[in-house]
Amino acid sequence: MKHLISIQDLTREEIVGLMDEADRFREALDGREIKKLPTLRGRTIFTLFYENSTRTRSSFETAGKWMSADVINVAASSSSVKKGESLKDTAATLAAVGADAIVMRHPASGAPHLLRQWLPETSIINAGDGQHQHPTQALLDAVTMRQHIGDVAGKHVLLVGDILHSRVARSNVDLLSALGATVTLVAPPTLLPTGVEHWPCETSTDFDAALESDPDVVMMLRVQAERMHGGFFPSHREYATLFGLSAARAARLRDDALIMHPGPMLRGMEINFDVADRPNTVVLGQVSNGVYTRMAVLFTLLASGEEGARA
Amino acid sequence: MKHLISIQDLTREEIVGLMDEADRFREALDGREIKKLPTLRGRTIFTLFYENSTRTRSSFETAGKWMSADVINVAASSSSVKKGESLKDTAATLAAVGADAIVMRHPASGAPHLLRQWLPETSIINAGDGQHQHPTQALLDAVTMRQHIGDVAGKHVLLVGDILHSRVARSNVDLLSALGATVTLVAPPTLLPTGVEHWPCETSTDFDAALESDPDVVMMLRVQAERMHGGFFPSHREYATLFGLSAARAARLRDDALIMHPGPMLRGMEINFDVADRPNTVVLGQVSNGVYTRMAVLFTLLASGEEGARA
Amino acid sequence: MKHLISIQDLTREEIVGLMDEADRFREALDGREIKKLPTLRGRTIFTLFYENSTRTRSSFETAGKWMSADVINVAASSSSVKKGESLKDTAATLAAVGADAIVMRHPASGAPHLLRQWLPETSIINAGDGQHQHPTQALLDAVTMRQHIGDVAGKHVLLVGDILHSRVARSNVDLLSALGATVTLVAPPTLLPTGVEHWPCETSTDFDAALESDPDVVMMLRVQAERMHGGFFPSHREYATLFGLSAARAARLRDDALIMHPGPMLRGMEINFDVADRPNTVVLGQVSNGVYTRMAVLFTLLASGEEGARA
Repeated sequence: MKHLISIQDLTREEIVGLMDEADRFREALDGREIKKLPTLRGRTIFTLFYENSTRTRSSFETAGKWMSADVINVAASSSSVKKGESLKDTAATLAAVGADAIVMRHPASGAPHLLRQWLPETSIINAGDGQHQHPTQALLDAVTMRQHIGDVAGKHVLLVGDILHSRVARSNVDLLSALGATVTLVAPPTLLPTGVEHWPCETSTDFDAALESDPDVVMMLRVQAERMHGGFFPSHREYATLFGLSAARAARLRDDALIMHPGPMLRGMEINFDVADRPNTVVLGQVSNGVYTRMAVLFTLLASGEEGARA
Repeated sequence: MKHLISIQDLTREEIVGLMDEADRFREALDGREIKKLPTLRGRTIFTLFYENSTRTRSSFETAGKWMSADVINVAASSSSVKKGESLKDTAATLAAVGADAIVMRHPASGAPHLLRQWLPETSIINAGDGQHQHPTQALLDAVTMRQHIGDVAGKHVLLVGDILHSRVARSNVDLLSALGATVTLVAPPTLLPTGVEHWPCETSTDFDAALESDPDVVMMLRVQAERMHGGFFPSHREYATLFGLSAARAARLRDDALIMHPGPMLRGMEINFDVADRPNTVVLGQVSNGVYTRMAVLFTLLASGEEGARA
Repeated sequence: MKHLISIQDLTREEIVGLMDEADRFREALDGREIKKLPTLRGRTIFTLFYENSTRTRSSFETAGKWMSADVINVAASSSSVKKGESLKDTAATLAAVGADAIVMRHPASGAPHLLRQWLPETSIINAGDGQHQHPTQALLDAVTMRQHIGDVAGKHVLLVGDILHSRVARSNVDLLSALGATVTLVAPPTLLPTGVEHWPCETSTDFDAALESDPDVVMMLRVQAERMHGGFFPSHREYATLFGLSAARAARLRDDALIMHPGPMLRGMEINFDVADRPNTVVLGQVSNGVYTRMAVLFTLLASGEEGARA
């Protein structure tokens, strides 16, 4: 494996291999005071973010640094992008500077795919492209599910909210269906994408009805406030009432059912204030597993082929 | 000691302990070509700055790196704050990513206190909160005074300028009074805070009269230009005339009296152009001691309890 | 050598020494999986950029990190500059924090020269100042030429485009003439600087005529879009037609003649889309040599005087 662009590029074995590797990093480091491995010493990782992100960028930076890589951040807002340089030339420049991997977030769906074509020698990692894919998010979500409720196969997962604009939803549907889970998308009709009937999942426009199915996991998606006035639904209040995870809805879940959210959460909008802090809400566990999952990805792409690479 | 939020949380012994530790780091590193200790290898420090700062952020970053910690910078302007995430969730996310310490600057007084309540397991370091506290600044100021004029007890310190908006003034009054120094605040009546009569210090509205007392230290505070039009005083010129440290006022000081300023200085406003460069002006010494003081704080919070932690 | 402000400060021997050092770093690291030397461990390098730059800033950061230095980035836009601090005090503060070297880009010609005067103990490296100098760019250009076509002495180099605003052109003319190459500047009369007749080079306002001379190198310069409406030439189209490196012009070059560009390129403007990717176009080689050249500069300024410094 040289790149990570889309969950669809991975076999079931590759997915499970990355998840197992993430578990091994968690077992090696979780709770340890000294979090430092020599694994990627002398490797250079560039983050190239065309959209702001605290958690994803700092998660990759932490993953790289814990493995002793050099991590260099490039924010596109302060870069040569403004001088009219093409994406191809920007990326080729980072590769020529010495990037072993480029971790890119970009508002255009497909941008990391282009990078992979242009730069076959540099590992390209998609950290979120438009409404397309966010593969490390889906991997860390599956790692978190497996940690708490065991094998994902046969489990039932509700993905609730703004499916239309969500790369997280797309990646999760791909990954969970590959692992044998059942997925139901729950959203207002205006926030379901065209062609969703061809996705490997069910859909529902009634959250309360979907909860009848006794799901193992309810994953709430972020509502992008900037889209709330675009006519997708009448008001914040109506959205929260119909598609928010209220205390009453959370009370209908089994005690061991997981509540998940990729963050950042808008408490009071897509998730009730108190529900976000319940014991079975594993949002912060997702964040922690995010670092271990990105360590697994970076290790697999950059060093797994080497004799004795893993110290 | 797990957190550093306010000088008021520290005993006299803790203050002196941190100052002694800062001296030890200075003795170990000052003038050395190789400034690198293994002390915090494998620890992860996040800086989370909701206000811009060159000197404080880079001072903490340098302190962490010289002790081999991983330091990851998060500027709130480019973060999930914009997406509507609460401060609590942002901070909890950084802790879940793996932060051993969060160094935070925030415009709201009390914000780091909330972080400490929310995240008892993560060391919270206040790098300046609103008009409240800036404890590492007061510590480095005391370290600098002691370096140049010996024991702070019994010394007389003038703090001159915009006391009302100054977290530096509050932290210094707390720390210097705890160490037995006498402090006089000098400011126009409009820039003295309500309730200042309950602070452990004197006040004066006449800089020239205050200089009669033959102070050991004159510490000038920054005038925030954005407040100059708020009616606090008639004009830049009047402020500089009445409360600036002019050459004539500096000439009235004893030769061994210190002139200090937390920076950034506005030469010609709160301090005369040439006075800022006199031999007894120790502004750059404050900056250097800032790194050693922050090393002492990070070391004390993160590693001092460990057997053989200090290499 | 303590500072690098201008090519004009260097003797021919110093120039060749830096180029040789860059070659040695390339030989030591190029193609290696582990790019990490202990050379500058414990040294602290600040980048202080008053203008945005992806390639130059990340090139210096990579160079420092590959030699194990601590590299701390300060973007002037988020710094105390906004609070009214002088350049002198900002720089003195970074030195007091512990900077062994300050790598500065500044829009004002001469700013790094002032820093050198103010901070003789700190190595100052000019990463581009106004329209004046960009010495590491000229060095990496010469390193790249020598790598591909051998000794620069006696070679003929065309520098084409916006000479007036180009610090790259000034530094290259100085360096190439010092090494014994012949340089011809090619530009519209409006983009040739006053006094160019005193520079150690020829000038031409006719690109096609200049190509008659059978040059060894054609170096295209970036056209700053923001200046395109300033009346320097009638239109983008006219500029591209008269001074762009079209496929037809490129076809007139010898097979082994180099095409160079400091980047970022505006394909379709100063260089044809396909010409930018020809085998003899060494733009990405310039980028790679940029890291090795900056390693050579940092090593020479910070560590070359030491016994056994080079591991």
